[in-house]
Amino acid sequence: MKIGSEILSSLKISSSDRVNKAEFCCSPRTILSVPVVGAGLSGLTAARDLINAGKSVVVLEARDRVGGRVLNAHLANGGITELGAEFVGPTQDRVLNMISTLGLKTYDTYNVGNDVLWHNNTRGTYFAGASGIPPLDVPSLLQAAAVEEALDSMAATIDVSAPWTHPSALDWDGMTFGYWLNSTISLSPARFLLDLFSTSVFSAESEELSFLYVLSYIASAGNETLVGTVERLINTQDAAQAQRVEGGTQLIAIKLAESLGLENIKFNAQVRSITKTSDGYDIGGNYPVSAKQVVVAMSPPLASRIEYYPILPASRDQLTQRMPMGSIGKAIAIYETPFWRSQNLTGQALSDDGIVRATFDNSPSDASFGALMGFIEADEMRQFDAQSEDAVKAAVLQDYVKYFGPEANNITEFVLQRWDNEQFSRGGPVAYGPPTLLTRFGPALKQPVGGIHFAGTETAPYWTGYMDGAIRSGERVAQEILETN
Amino acid sequence: MKIGSEILSSLKISSSDRVNKAEFCCSPRTILSVPVVGAGLSGLTAARDLINAGKSVVVLEARDRVGGRVLNAHLANGGITELGAEFVGPTQDRVLNMISTLGLKTYDTYNVGNDVLWHNNTRGTYFAGASGIPPLDVPSLLQAAAVEEALDSMAATIDVSAPWTHPSALDWDGMTFGYWLNSTISLSPARFLLDLFSTSVFSAESEELSFLYVLSYIASAGNETLVGTVERLINTQDAAQAQRVEGGTQLIAIKLAESLGLENIKFNAQVRSITKTSDGYDIGGNYPVSAKQVVVAMSPPLASRIEYYPILPASRDQLTQRMPMGSIGKAIAIYETPFWRSQNLTGQALSDDGIVRATFDNSPSDASFGALMGFIEADEMRQFDAQSEDAVKAAVLQDYVKYFGPEANNITEFVLQRWDNEQFSRGGPVAYGPPTLLTRFGPALKQPVGGIHFAGTETAPYWTGYMDGAIRSGERVAQEILETN
Repeated sequence: MKIGSEILSSLKISSSDRVNKAEFCCSPRTILSVPVVGAGLSGLTAARDLINAGKSVVVLEARDRVGGRVLNAHLANGGITELGAEFVGPTQDRVLNMISTLGLKTYDTYNVGNDVLWHNNTRGTYFAGASGIPPLDVPSLLQAAAVEEALDSMAATIDVSAPWTHPSALDWDGMTFGYWLNSTISLSPARFLLDLFSTSVFSAESEELSFLYVLSYIASAGNETLVGTVERLINTQDAAQAQRVEGGTQLIAIKLAESLGLENIKFNAQVRSITKTSDGYDIGGNYPVSAKQVVVAMSPPLASRIEYYPILPASRDQLTQRMPMGSIGKAIAIYETPFWRSQNLTGQALSDDGIVRATFDNSPSDASFGALMGFIEADEMRQFDAQSEDAVKAAVLQDYVKYFGPEANNITEFVLQRWDNEQFSRGGPVAYGPPTLLTRFGPALKQPVGGIHFAGTETAPYWTGYMDGAIRSGERVAQEILETN
Repeated sequence: MKIGSEILSSLKISSSDRVNKAEFCCSPRTILSVPVVGAGLSGLTAARDLINAGKSVVVLEARDRVGGRVLNAHLANGGITELGAEFVGPTQDRVLNMISTLGLKTYDTYNVGNDVLWHNNTRGTYFAGASGIPPLDVPSLLQAAAVEEALDSMAATIDVSAPWTHPSALDWDGMTFGYWLNSTISLSPARFLLDLFSTSVFSAESEELSFLYVLSYIASAGNETLVGTVERLINTQDAAQAQRVEGGTQLIAIKLAESLGLENIKFNAQVRSITKTSDGYDIGGNYPVSAKQVVVAMSPPLASRIEYYPILPASRDQLTQRMPMGSIGKAIAIYETPFWRSQNLTGQALSDDGIVRATFDNSPSDASFGALMGFIEADEMRQFDAQSEDAVKAAVLQDYVKYFGPEANNITEFVLQRWDNEQFSRGGPVAYGPPTLLTRFGPALKQPVGGIHFAGTETAPYWTGYMDGAIRSGERVAQEILETN
């Protein structure tokens, strides 16, 4: 697996073009209208709209690649696999539109046959379609369905642009989602399903999350005309996991970057300070620039690691102290073929045990090889963050054999991405809200500070935490800047 | 009020000695055994023990003064007042011992007469001693007492060095303190008392705190022989607010710094990076040094703003993303005399309304002038963080008049310290634990990473959040280093 160099070469950037710390320490500052900090989808989208409006823009990226939490890996067999955000689905209008505009193609996530359920040390299978029902006892299934319905109906009352204005906001934001589940669910198989919802959507245990934040996140899984639902978050068919992108989702970021003009993106250009001057800002770091305004397109916890002069208002700083990244990894086992398909399995498994508790068929659309992807999330990821890659691999394959049989051991390659250990992510997929975050600090998420504007999927009213939300936030921040000029 | 320059002159450091960024950018690194990052009480204590053991030490302090969250202000009337940590009390053995060793004197916090209670827009007074009872209805008082007893008895079962090992740890750490109060307290006056406990001890609303963290903090309010209790946290007599220090608590830090040799402390020496080398660490910033080991004596949320190469383990980084500072300010109104004393009032008030909900008599021991100190905490502080000092002053004096009568308007000076707005604090008094912090990340609080050792009051088993805890953490970290060498 080669990540950095492959991506760089796909962007036609030679290593001699890379920004070098010493080289730039004393060079004169470039004067721009709006630099953008971060070449993830939010930053690149903001840059696109600002450039189209005639602004001079440079995207300053700490990594040697574009995409942020969206990342392709190149496999030994010549294919690719996705280590970060991977799926798109209905109501994700902005990312679907961008995919189409950039000339990329989507295809349906493989979803033919049965899903696997591993529960109480027993393996079962069930039809994967909308009518499929996990093999759990009926009272538990009814209870889980009732809880889901309750979540949806509460979520439907939330204003996704200002969840803190809800009449019950203080109450809901004062309790953990886990505690609400404790007081609502009596049957352990129902609780298992809801805990899996928490870890697979947020990469956080239910006890880490504010109940208001969870309701707000459910509400955000839609668009201006369709309110979000639990099903649209968790399902494959007609939901957030419905489709994939030919060639891998990082192509969205790469093609978007190419369309901006590659000279407008500076790599290895970590920003370390943003200093107000008499007429704008000096952006300090490996590639110093000066500008009237600046877009910070980073997750809140990482944005706080830039030094701001003068310091940011307490509301913004204390927000960033309180909004952590989830704990997430992706493990992808590569096979000669997607062998599970011949067993009438989708490759999707749900489990109450092991390091991997949710899997997907990550094979390419032509099934030229097989790929089983497993999410490692929350407590499981934290348990394995410091362990060797071999230890993780052994634990993952042990689970895959439980779910898909002994053939799961016959891998040709094993790819592991632990986002918790990435310097410029330190977790994933999204910075989440613990109790009291939204009611006390919510407005500071996207409130500009002078000429400093904040983007990132965390600031989006729809599809917070997804590629679609990142793109929406980039569009919003560009509009915000253009309206004030 | 002059803070920085006065303190600097008291430390006999001229401004030409101050470290200047440009001056040090290219100077050769100093080679040391153990640099200490942060000249608060924890860092200074660690430096003291390391120097006494023969190590070469420099304390690198970003501010132009020692003390961190301990700070004297010099008043126009020639006196001083305390803007940060202020009180000491029984079982705070380490800080009491240090005060005595440094030749400083303590005196009893003024506590003669009656306290004021402002509740439901009504002012009442009640005897301030141990037998005093706030004028609330008896059922509420009984309920509050029962809750306090329950908290104490649960706290008594906690191992303060490892709260996450308690049999109920997962359950307690999965709920907010506010939610536990919701399910335990039915009477609103009782809830008022417990909410005031939360804001005045943690500078956080009860909904921000993990219930396990609260129990652990209560347990920590003692020493190796006396388990902590709610009363020892909140009371004046025989408790954490029992005594004050002649000349102000910052004298502890100043005299400790003098005892180390002032040449061993570098001011304006913000550390920006800690980089592992083949045989130790390079400490980058305004005063670059190299060393085998390093002590980071900072609160977790600020320690994360240093860049570490290689990056810190996920367990440590994600801890720092999840442990925010409380929101706190102190407002001190200065008067010709402590006029409330002639009304048989202690100067202590508790309130359910206004910007200030807990006050103390902050006059000096000789009562040569009067000083009323009010804490501004949690939601109240956040509401006023961005407002003008005049607006805060007006709101504070309005409260003081409610509590102590119209004479409270006759101030000679008004001193305000908003810790949320301090660049090198960004809140206070302590970084607290939201739900799941201790059970998922607790061990990372003081676990060294290679030769990087962590101090700070947040890491102390006793008197976490207090000066005593800071000193304990400095002693522990020095011992940790000396034992490995």
